Amino acid sequence: MKTVRVDLDDRSYPIYIGNDVLGAEHLAQHIPGRQVLVVTNETIAPLYLERTLAELSDFQCDAVLLPDGERYKTLETAGRIYDRLLESRMDRQVTLVALGGGVVGDITGFVAATYQRGVHFVQIPTTLLAQVDSSVGGKTGVNHPLGKNMIGAFYQPRCVIADTRTLATLPERELQAGIAEVVKYGLIRDAAFLDWLEAHMSALLARDPEALTYAIEQSCRHKAEVVAADEREAGQRALLNLGHTFGHAIETHTGYSEWLHGEAVGTGMCMAARLSAELGWISEADCARTERIVAAAGLPTRPPRMASERFLELMAVDKKAIGGKIRLVLLKALGHAVVTQDFDPSALDRVLAEYA
Amino acid sequence: MKTVRVDLDDRSYPIYIGNDVLGAEHLAQHIPGRQVLVVTNETIAPLYLERTLAELSDFQCDAVLLPDGERYKTLETAGRIYDRLLESRMDRQVTLVALGGGVVGDITGFVAATYQRGVHFVQIPTTLLAQVDSSVGGKTGVNHPLGKNMIGAFYQPRCVIADTRTLATLPERELQAGIAEVVKYGLIRDAAFLDWLEAHMSALLARDPEALTYAIEQSCRHKAEVVAADEREAGQRALLNLGHTFGHAIETHTGYSEWLHGEAVGTGMCMAARLSAELGWISEADCARTERIVAAAGLPTRPPRMASERFLELMAVDKKAIGGKIRLVLLKALGHAVVTQDFDPSALDRVLAEYA
Repeated sequence: MKTVRVDLDDRSYPIYIGNDVLGAEHLAQHIPGRQVLVVTNETIAPLYLERTLAELSDFQCDAVLLPDGERYKTLETAGRIYDRLLESRMDRQVTLVALGGGVVGDITGFVAATYQRGVHFVQIPTTLLAQVDSSVGGKTGVNHPLGKNMIGAFYQPRCVIADTRTLATLPERELQAGIAEVVKYGLIRDAAFLDWLEAHMSALLARDPEALTYAIEQSCRHKAEVVAADEREAGQRALLNLGHTFGHAIETHTGYSEWLHGEAVGTGMCMAARLSAELGWISEADCARTERIVAAAGLPTRPPRMASERFLELMAVDKKAIGGKIRLVLLKALGHAVVTQDFDPSALDRVLAEYA
Repeated sequence: MKTVRVDLDDRSYPIYIGNDVLGAEHLAQHIPGRQVLVVTNETIAPLYLERTLAELSDFQCDAVLLPDGERYKTLETAGRIYDRLLESRMDRQVTLVALGGGVVGDITGFVAATYQRGVHFVQIPTTLLAQVDSSVGGKTGVNHPLGKNMIGAFYQPRCVIADTRTLATLPERELQAGIAEVVKYGLIRDAAFLDWLEAHMSALLARDPEALTYAIEQSCRHKAEVVAADEREAGQRALLNLGHTFGHAIETHTGYSEWLHGEAVGTGMCMAARLSAELGWISEADCARTERIVAAAGLPTRPPRMASERFLELMAVDKKAIGGKIRLVLLKALGHAVVTQDFDPSALDRVLAEYA
């Protein structure tokens, strides 16, 4: 088992990574009160809910099942959790346990941040994407019809349990979507990890436990370092959004249903690389290499058919935008990203037109 | 003009109190970005919105009007503010200005805490209750059908502007409701202020500006001291809830519509005093004096007809409750309150039966 620590003063917490770490009694030791509400979804419940509840037999425990899918990441779905908490008379000492992928984790974290003005919270991510990204760092929230993650809070869990066993049942497409975020860490800050990923992509796709554990550990280490330096995204944390501004536009345009988040991010990273090349910041060869790695993970490298104006309109509501100006994460080299609004907007227009 | 400072490290902020402080250019200096959304309600807008917007002429400003009343303090109403923020393309640098009473302040603060995971926020309370209580200390939130303020966050404003001029248009009943919270500070921690209140109750009811300014200043000073010592209500901040557990039960029972919050708190304080006397912690004379002061403010001293069981059921979902046990703020003397669950429950039963 590997442990990565997220350093945030009195909000520091461990991430446990490995095979069957869920069964290693980490869960109970991070629950301070008597009451627990496990939040999961209809897909995950039959697979891992019983197992999780067995670890929680010492507590007064209840579970709520949400519908599965990004389109349910709404204030209305959060409302169902509030309802259950109140119907079950859960008090301010309750711990919410998020058992599932990013949607379950984000909604549950938001409810934990806001139920009675904040209760305890533990993440048990069951998708690769959630294990390497969304469960770590305290970003919680729900979508609004006009934009993704527009309603939320920064709120840290008490621990994260990333059990690679839960990846055995993960659909192929979701595994690939998770790899998009893994590739992201290589692209923004670790060229050597990018080399490793190129060499081990087929091992990851074959769910080799050692390769997965290494990839998750490196990803969490990178994320923990960035988050510890900039918890509330005043500066460099925004680097973690490589590909996300393009990706969110794709997700919003397609109604959060056709494209998985990681797929949109994979394509978004290719678009960011393409724009970086158009600006002359990276070579055409590096741009092509980025697309090759994304494609090797089985991810799409081109957006759906969307007019440039539509793309720009959706990108303008991105949280990184300031005063209406689009800010993007772009590449100065593979392994070195920057957050910037200082780029020639006509280069962006050309890139969008090329894809449209 | 008086200034009371709330000391919370990097979240410290001033409260400006006095006649026409809204016009004294405090507002603009506490707004860091370019965009402002003023949130107010249909009652306050015709009175003070134009005046407020005039102070904000240098900003890109928009306003949203909410329906007036505690029954609209819901997630749905918060949703209207999110909608407007997104429709108006307000970014992460926006400042929300809450212009109105406690409901407007609480909802707006909650939206500020959660829009794009947190944006700036200023309070311009226009009721006495909001000026002495809800606008100070960072408690934000909305109600749930099963309990008051069950969804919320701790989130501090950048400043509070308490302009006594805005009290000129306040309905009599709301003025009285505000005085309930002023009396509360005397009861929980300042016997001398309680004496002052007894002597100046008619001046307050006549809206004497000097008496009002003094009462607001003392109230804010007390609240600021308590909040600075215990921002997230781990301990003594709960003292500020004197009368509130009883009061919330009344408000929930009557659907947040018949009783004003301050009226419910006034009655709740009488019930807390009655229980304290029943327990032998204060004298019958002190209990009667409490009721006299509450009555002198024009406030009800008895709850509506409610069965004891109903009262207990509603009190059990109070945020102070731990493990199903009701915790209450009770009086050890006038000017000295404690938070406790160590009281004879049969005494509570007797008191509730007496009122029912």
